[in-house]
Amino acid sequence: MAVPQGYRLGGVYCGIKRYDDKLDLSLLVSDRPAVAAGVYTTNLVFAAPVKWDRSLTPGQGLRGVVINSGNANACTGTRGDADCKQMAELAAATCGAQAEQMLVLSTGIIGEFLPTAKIEKGIRDVAGKLGTDEASLTAAARGMLTTDTRHKVATRSLNVAGKSVTITGMAKGAAMIGPKMATMLAVVMTDAALEPADAQSMLADVVDETFNCISVDGHMSTNDTVLLLANGAANSAPLAGDDLSAFQAALFEVCQELAIAIPADGEGATHLVQVEVQGCRTRDEARSIAKSVSESLLVKTAICGADPNWGRIVSAAGYANIPFDPARVHLWVNNIHLYEDGAPREFDRKAASESIKNNRDTHILLTFGEGDESIRFWSTDLTAEYVRLNADYHT
Amino acid sequence: MAVPQGYRLGGVYCGIKRYDDKLDLSLLVSDRPAVAAGVYTTNLVFAAPVKWDRSLTPGQGLRGVVINSGNANACTGTRGDADCKQMAELAAATCGAQAEQMLVLSTGIIGEFLPTAKIEKGIRDVAGKLGTDEASLTAAARGMLTTDTRHKVATRSLNVAGKSVTITGMAKGAAMIGPKMATMLAVVMTDAALEPADAQSMLADVVDETFNCISVDGHMSTNDTVLLLANGAANSAPLAGDDLSAFQAALFEVCQELAIAIPADGEGATHLVQVEVQGCRTRDEARSIAKSVSESLLVKTAICGADPNWGRIVSAAGYANIPFDPARVHLWVNNIHLYEDGAPREFDRKAASESIKNNRDTHILLTFGEGDESIRFWSTDLTAEYVRLNADYHT
Repeated sequence: MAVPQGYRLGGVYCGIKRYDDKLDLSLLVSDRPAVAAGVYTTNLVFAAPVKWDRSLTPGQGLRGVVINSGNANACTGTRGDADCKQMAELAAATCGAQAEQMLVLSTGIIGEFLPTAKIEKGIRDVAGKLGTDEASLTAAARGMLTTDTRHKVATRSLNVAGKSVTITGMAKGAAMIGPKMATMLAVVMTDAALEPADAQSMLADVVDETFNCISVDGHMSTNDTVLLLANGAANSAPLAGDDLSAFQAALFEVCQELAIAIPADGEGATHLVQVEVQGCRTRDEARSIAKSVSESLLVKTAICGADPNWGRIVSAAGYANIPFDPARVHLWVNNIHLYEDGAPREFDRKAASESIKNNRDTHILLTFGEGDESIRFWSTDLTAEYVRLNADYHT
Repeated sequence: MAVPQGYRLGGVYCGIKRYDDKLDLSLLVSDRPAVAAGVYTTNLVFAAPVKWDRSLTPGQGLRGVVINSGNANACTGTRGDADCKQMAELAAATCGAQAEQMLVLSTGIIGEFLPTAKIEKGIRDVAGKLGTDEASLTAAARGMLTTDTRHKVATRSLNVAGKSVTITGMAKGAAMIGPKMATMLAVVMTDAALEPADAQSMLADVVDETFNCISVDGHMSTNDTVLLLANGAANSAPLAGDDLSAFQAALFEVCQELAIAIPADGEGATHLVQVEVQGCRTRDEARSIAKSVSESLLVKTAICGADPNWGRIVSAAGYANIPFDPARVHLWVNNIHLYEDGAPREFDRKAASESIKNNRDTHILLTFGEGDESIRFWSTDLTAEYVRLNADYHT
């Protein structure tokens, strides 16, 4: 796991979370001004750091990202905005920058004010421990976790414009929103140089195909944010043409790897479910069907129970509000053909059930014969353990 | 529980379900031709009896409804259509009518052909047992159940056009779709006389405010149907004007009582949750917000855990895709004011939790201050028992 050139980062425990075997404050600094792009939650109820970052991206001259976990700074009003700005100021001061050069991410409990003294101490601590090695990257990635069971990083290197550039991302998300926790955050850094407008449009495109194709409970958080920083330490001229396309392909791979890691670490989940929808008129229609199947409680519980229940899958597709001819629908689960031209096929139920039971990955393929557009979605099963995790919690 | 004039009905066990302590075939006959209206699933994948009934409603000259549970006759192709027509013919023959005078409802396993010999025997049996007393009504209501734990009937009488008329309905639905089961069916019969067009528009309006305001897992079945039969045995001239309005009000009450009975009997549910949304610009906007809150797994698990988790409720409202000013939002749970003008309030957390824990009914009230439109939705909590019921099933 390589850290791109010109970045230093780290993570510490500063007392926001209850137990000191966790980390809860991370800082990422670019030694030179970076272009930054951001994609955010579309929830009308959004957190103070989302408001802050939105005002700064797309932009240039950014110097880093400060992140806390354990407190989302959401539903905290004007005091939340002031706390967020102070957090940016403190982090910016560690590298001689202004508040408006520092992006902020918060995740955790909603509706409580940030413990500013702890955060001030944490920023001071982490500033003395920034590094460029894998241990520093891991610490930064850990500092953004909430109910995740493992940290999530991904990296790619490629040659563009005669130089080797690196893209490295880190993300958090336990797929299910934890008790009063917000869901997903991701930061991707690169030493490539990018124009701000290119960075923003590329990030928006890539997020649409990666982080917007994961769904566990369909509950959109108040804090969801994906940031991209590009500091140009590896190449000085902004990428263009084929180089930009090659970069976007690598960015897609980094984001897809991070996105899949989120449902793969889903609360209580025993299966990672890939829902692939093919043969639709438009990609948005394919997305609506994939989302309907991915979010069906009955499909999710069937997979938990290793039940190749084609009826639940086909009926979930049927209520997605997308017109299609039911007589052209086919369905495969783990490559076993269950449904053909709108009718169930004979199949070995025991073998199909065993295939689901014995694999952590489940693949659902639905084809519609209406066009050439397709999509892939990633989700989890729904287990009694998930309900326990989310019910056995008291404010 | 009164059966309206001119109807006879009953229910028997004919071997479609595994155990003979259940009933699985019901017949309802009107002694005189009745006006009939129907409202159906909008799922693109719909069952043979839905196709049959759609072709006959709104209409007149109908003589009854034959219902089986244990098999949905869905995804069964042209053979399913033929089986459905035969079921109508057999039932119609018991009262000297034609197939096209008999409506059909089926609910249960998807993708298997109807056991026609058992159904033929069942229709013969039930035809000899039709009655007009409460026991007959109960038997008919039991014959349409699947995973329900209790039968669901409701009745109202009112004076219109100088006569007393009665409206009696029966419904099935375990709120959650049972293992491979379709969800809800309802039949409402009245001895009032109605014009077919009035019957249809009234039923559509009433269903929109009752059966379309219940949501448990958002999974729409292939068989959902609500039928209204009006045979005019109590008054001969079709109702009009104020009489029609009074009738619609009573029809609303019957359907609301039946609709609420469905989530109240939800699989594994420990709470019936009423989500009331007030102060929206339009009723559809209120409905979208109520649906988003009602279907949030995180809201449902919070209620299961007796957690007055305002953050989950407010954020579920925020992603309903309905514009509103977050700073005007208020929230009460069981009349405890948790959220005021877009910010959390101080409240007694222990008392709020106890209030949820000690009542089977939970009331969530969200106000938006955007307009005068409101809606009420009914849902359930989500428990580990629900997951077990729906996962521990194998095809």
